[in-house]
Amino acid sequence: MLLETIKAPADIKKLSQPELKQLAAEIREGILNRDSLIGGHVGPNLGIVETIIALHYVFDTPHDKIVYDVSHQCYPHKMLTGRWKGFFDTAEIQKISGYTNPEESEYDNFIIGHTSTSVSLATGLAKARDLRGETHKVIALIGDGSLSGGEALEGLSNAAVLNSNILIIVNDNEMSIAENHGGIYTNLRLLRETNGKAECNMFKALGFDYHYVADGNVQEDMIKILQELKDVKKPTVLHIHTLKGKGYKPAEENKERWHWSLPFDLKTGNITVDLSGENYNDITYNFLYERHLKDKNLAILTAGTPGAFGLTAERRASFGENYIDVGIAEEHAIAMSSAMAKGGCRPVFMVFSSFLQRTYDQLSQDLAMNNNPAVILVFNGGINGMDATHLGTFDIPLVSNIPNMVYLAPTGKEEYLAMLNWGLKQTKHPVVIRVPLAVTRGGQPQEDYSELNRFQVVRKGSKVAVLALGSFFELGASVADKLKEQGIEATLINPRYITGLDEKLLTELAAGHQVVITLENGALAGGFGEKIAAFYGATPVKVLNYGAAKEFSDRVPYPELAQRYRLTPEQIAADVSAVLK
Amino acid sequence: MLLETIKAPADIKKLSQPELKQLAAEIREGILNRDSLIGGHVGPNLGIVETIIALHYVFDTPHDKIVYDVSHQCYPHKMLTGRWKGFFDTAEIQKISGYTNPEESEYDNFIIGHTSTSVSLATGLAKARDLRGETHKVIALIGDGSLSGGEALEGLSNAAVLNSNILIIVNDNEMSIAENHGGIYTNLRLLRETNGKAECNMFKALGFDYHYVADGNVQEDMIKILQELKDVKKPTVLHIHTLKGKGYKPAEENKERWHWSLPFDLKTGNITVDLSGENYNDITYNFLYERHLKDKNLAILTAGTPGAFGLTAERRASFGENYIDVGIAEEHAIAMSSAMAKGGCRPVFMVFSSFLQRTYDQLSQDLAMNNNPAVILVFNGGINGMDATHLGTFDIPLVSNIPNMVYLAPTGKEEYLAMLNWGLKQTKHPVVIRVPLAVTRGGQPQEDYSELNRFQVVRKGSKVAVLALGSFFELGASVADKLKEQGIEATLINPRYITGLDEKLLTELAAGHQVVITLENGALAGGFGEKIAAFYGATPVKVLNYGAAKEFSDRVPYPELAQRYRLTPEQIAADVSAVLK
Repeated sequence: MLLETIKAPADIKKLSQPELKQLAAEIREGILNRDSLIGGHVGPNLGIVETIIALHYVFDTPHDKIVYDVSHQCYPHKMLTGRWKGFFDTAEIQKISGYTNPEESEYDNFIIGHTSTSVSLATGLAKARDLRGETHKVIALIGDGSLSGGEALEGLSNAAVLNSNILIIVNDNEMSIAENHGGIYTNLRLLRETNGKAECNMFKALGFDYHYVADGNVQEDMIKILQELKDVKKPTVLHIHTLKGKGYKPAEENKERWHWSLPFDLKTGNITVDLSGENYNDITYNFLYERHLKDKNLAILTAGTPGAFGLTAERRASFGENYIDVGIAEEHAIAMSSAMAKGGCRPVFMVFSSFLQRTYDQLSQDLAMNNNPAVILVFNGGINGMDATHLGTFDIPLVSNIPNMVYLAPTGKEEYLAMLNWGLKQTKHPVVIRVPLAVTRGGQPQEDYSELNRFQVVRKGSKVAVLALGSFFELGASVADKLKEQGIEATLINPRYITGLDEKLLTELAAGHQVVITLENGALAGGFGEKIAAFYGATPVKVLNYGAAKEFSDRVPYPELAQRYRLTPEQIAADVSAVLK
Repeated sequence: MLLETIKAPADIKKLSQPELKQLAAEIREGILNRDSLIGGHVGPNLGIVETIIALHYVFDTPHDKIVYDVSHQCYPHKMLTGRWKGFFDTAEIQKISGYTNPEESEYDNFIIGHTSTSVSLATGLAKARDLRGETHKVIALIGDGSLSGGEALEGLSNAAVLNSNILIIVNDNEMSIAENHGGIYTNLRLLRETNGKAECNMFKALGFDYHYVADGNVQEDMIKILQELKDVKKPTVLHIHTLKGKGYKPAEENKERWHWSLPFDLKTGNITVDLSGENYNDITYNFLYERHLKDKNLAILTAGTPGAFGLTAERRASFGENYIDVGIAEEHAIAMSSAMAKGGCRPVFMVFSSFLQRTYDQLSQDLAMNNNPAVILVFNGGINGMDATHLGTFDIPLVSNIPNMVYLAPTGKEEYLAMLNWGLKQTKHPVVIRVPLAVTRGGQPQEDYSELNRFQVVRKGSKVAVLALGSFFELGASVADKLKEQGIEATLINPRYITGLDEKLLTELAAGHQVVITLENGALAGGFGEKIAAFYGATPVKVLNYGAAKEFSDRVPYPELAQRYRLTPEQIAADVSAVLK
């Protein structure tokens, strides 16, 4: 393999054009090999191979700095910067992350896993360079999907007036994660159709020099344009048109399916992990679809990642005009949901825990302060073994400390559906629901949740009370079972509400219970358990909080985290014994 | 007064052109009267009078819906919708807020006090209207300054593809709060200079129909264009050029000074409240300016509100290239600060507590996860009597629960400067400093804060320990004094660090202390005190937390809030006695 000879990116400068083509083929092989084995971003990486080869061919990294937006597109970069084994050698694959990380390589400038950050980060690097009298090139590589995020747009407006050397490569593959949405794409299309010549050009409007490459998968063209732009000292946008999934037929043909994939069979493209069994994507869709048939005011919103919630093109179409994908624009999605509720509709915005983070101020100002009855479904909230950028541990502190908000934690399928049903029926509160992880029966659902903050006693006992929130309800039941082995009949409680305390129940508990333990599937800092501890602060009741420590864990498997955070029934029961002594 | 005859906006439809001119003059008188008495937004309201008269003349509110961005510009609207007494009648002034609020009037659609939200909110109203088969007009009125915020840009991109009836009026007065910054303004200028004719037009690029009015302060012109656009069914941008401060000479001449004003003398324009005495704006500027002379890597960043930190045009210029105002674009400011720190500079971003809320994900992903040593100064953090949209109570929960972040709470001037000095010297952490409110001596500063989370014992006592955070340190001292009257020599502690606990000290305290009380000038939910309660959860130590309740208080004077939250030394001492009994 040629890749084996590339010790540093400088080595590719010596290669001939045919050798560069071979290199591109090897990189594609590496992408597909890794993704088929452990899953990962397929289409974005396949489409950007020639661009990244050209970047390292023309520029001198790490002296020159490249910032990869979301780092969805960083696999080729990793292979060219000494990390090719992470794509070919099964023993090495897990050592290399799917995102850029300066701790992994000096060729990576930032840990990046959220979209739309590259332009602002590159602007900062460029400004620092200028103030320090340095002269290296700073480049942001951003996909068209990331362009619609507020931070990217703020960044573009500011990069345009930097009055200095910054190159922003807009990789336009006509796709966000799903199809693109928004006026930005109207303009990108016009620019493609006019070979970059249209006068009405949003990048020029902002003040950028602008260049267009019609086929960014032609190696020679990419090298040529970057050589031309190498010494340009003005803010410049290079708009390149590439083919998402280039070189892998299934991915070229079905771009959305192949944006990211679970492990798959290279020949057939079929997923190789078992996906059978009930899941919350189907449960949610089926519920909403049934309701949509009866209620024309229901509206479903997503922000660029419908596939993550099982909303295939077919399912999206089944909602007609009542489905809205706003593209990667979560801030807009929250404000729009609030206003749609104000306007008499019943909006349901589906979002990952990690991406909800982009909307704190919209949750507070646009939604909660106005008390509009929008519904938000938070998926993937909980402790997981993902990259540090994709943890699901921060949504409870984020949402639950905002006044007016009602954040519900269903324990299983039936309760989830009951809460969703209530959220859509009531008109008094913004309701956020933390979608459970496992499809279990959980606590006993009820029809009406309008009497806020009433915790549910599931098993009545004494001495020890276990407050087991949402997806940790099953863990709570296991803890109660384990305590039983120690002769303690613990009280088991399903708190249901994350945004308030059942002060009456908690006060009553103080009578027959010496220890209250709280279990939450998220970060302890700023979360649910601390509030229970504060409530009992002036009483003799002892409180033990269980949840995630305050850290950005990075690809640490859940069982290891559970041990670390003392989340096994054995550990918890041992702690209780120690306190009761 | 004509205004007295306007019971509802429909009444102005009968007025003649000369009467409308008289109405405009009366509205300007009302704006100046109110602002001179109690302070408020001057320039934005004076400039938009003719537009708002035209809106109510042409459209039928509240059937048609107008969304006012930031509601900086809503005074004329309030006077035309039954609330003119709030501008002329001293007894009524305090009853009417400076922002829109549906609880105040059915003509207001949202509580709005943060910028850049109007386009997204209007898009939601318009989409709800369409799904419900309604036909009213939806209009967003947004100032040029608000246009640079991420949420506004996300909104524009989505409004452009609504495929329906929405009108966005861009009020271009060539000013944000201070001068405008960013590529967006490059394009607005081009459009002004070409009387709206330039082909390179960012609004058209996004897909909007576009119209331009060269003088938006000419009543007839504004009525004429709105009548033309009344029945247009496509997403439309109406770009109007107006004069900020129109009709009040001092405000026309010095637009930045008159964006917002404290109470002033109408004749001279002089502020009528006493501003003498030391303040943190001057203290901060003087420190940073001295440092700037010695360190060319120091950079000062603001996001559209430099005046709020005393950074006059002259002071800004004194930093040369090392001062950067990014316009209203806080997300960008955080990412840029992180990257500038990565690039070897020492950025200091100055921001209000309330506006920092727009940056949770950037604080987490761009800054904290990358551990870059940027410094953020949070002004106005604390319980205050302001509008619900401008509270300073949420920054502690927001910042302090993010891993890696070091959030410091200086108690007074000397400690503030010592912490700022250390923040700029160290290179290991992102450091956020909560600028104190009163200029007091506070705790004892030290040179080095790199041993994190070491609380400082200021007075050593027994039985009761008072953990008094940041600007509540003086309150803590008063509580200790009050307890002394009851025969208790309390221990007084300056925690200094908000982002971590001094577990060693807290463990030692448990020996000689039965009660620990925490005082924080911010919301309790998710804050500092709850963590202390959780720490002592399994011990016999009693913990009492003091801070703000979880609510959006709205213009409630501080003394009343202090009573409500039991923040007086008397109340706290009484609580302690009750627990000790």
